[in-house]
Amino acid sequence: MGVSLGGYIAGDDHSLEWLKIVETDPPEDTGYTPSVDALVLGRNSYDAVIGFTPYPYSGKRVIVLTTRPADSKHGETFYNGSLEPLLETLALEGVQRVYLDGGNAVRQGLEAGVVDDLTISTLPIILGSGIALFERGLPQSRWTLVSSRSFESGLVQATYQRP
Amino acid sequence: MGVSLGGYIAGDDHSLEWLKIVETDPPEDTGYTPSVDALVLGRNSYDAVIGFTPYPYSGKRVIVLTTRPADSKHGETFYNGSLEPLLETLALEGVQRVYLDGGNAVRQGLEAGVVDDLTISTLPIILGSGIALFERGLPQSRWTLVSSRSFESGLVQATYQRP
Repeated sequence: MGVSLGGYIAGDDHSLEWLKIVETDPPEDTGYTPSVDALVLGRNSYDAVIGFTPYPYSGKRVIVLTTRPADSKHGETFYNGSLEPLLETLALEGVQRVYLDGGNAVRQGLEAGVVDDLTISTLPIILGSGIALFERGLPQSRWTLVSSRSFESGLVQATYQRP
Repeated sequence: MGVSLGGYIAGDDHSLEWLKIVETDPPEDTGYTPSVDALVLGRNSYDAVIGFTPYPYSGKRVIVLTTRPADSKHGETFYNGSLEPLLETLALEGVQRVYLDGGNAVRQGLEAGVVDDLTISTLPIILGSGIALFERGLPQSRWTLVSSRSFESGLVQATYQRP
């Protein structure tokens, strides 16, 4: 998840334009293409990613959680429903390790208790208002810091595991 | 500022109990005693700090922003008012460099544009609900990452400057 200082993950208009402040040429290797069986993205995250050149999930199975299916550009599919039944379906197909991105998708994963690793990439910006990363009254949970690193762009990336 | 994953700085009851998850014996040297002329703390931060052993601000000038003055235990004084006039008064006394702690104090400093450096210490916990670090509709602002480091306790500390 990309978050701002203070935890907002999008502006008031759901805009993700601010993510561009850490775009560099060539792109920094922030581990953006994880080694997983599938990626499940929220619609806003997908709309942001689809604008990236090169498309970072080329060759990966991508499922987009959305009520508004769109044209598939790289083989991605669209799923209108909640996360848990989707993960159950995927598990039956042998999909074990899923990467979640997007506030809503990650919150659903945390609520369902299916998140093993959590990577939070903090960008050097205060948005001041907008959509909070965890705003829905999640249960309190402790995590174990596995690693943290920073990038020239000012990104600070920390990875946590369930204790 | 100590923040949780997702940016909440206190639980729903304003509790700072969760800060204890990174307490170690002996304490980690997280630079908790900064080299400044004075410290201005919000009341909740002060109430948390006053319970620490040893008291981390021994020998420092400490001013507590509060509407409910308390007994001074280490020479700290109490100020019932907003941050900017306090900083103006301090500047007349030659106090140049002030350390702010507490959500309300830091927000007032950011609104007034007097924050040069910002240190955010992220603890490995999701609070899920509570008080957000920057919830008052601050203007959007870019920052420059100066340094980041992590500690055995799972604390990730990042320091930013105004560009």
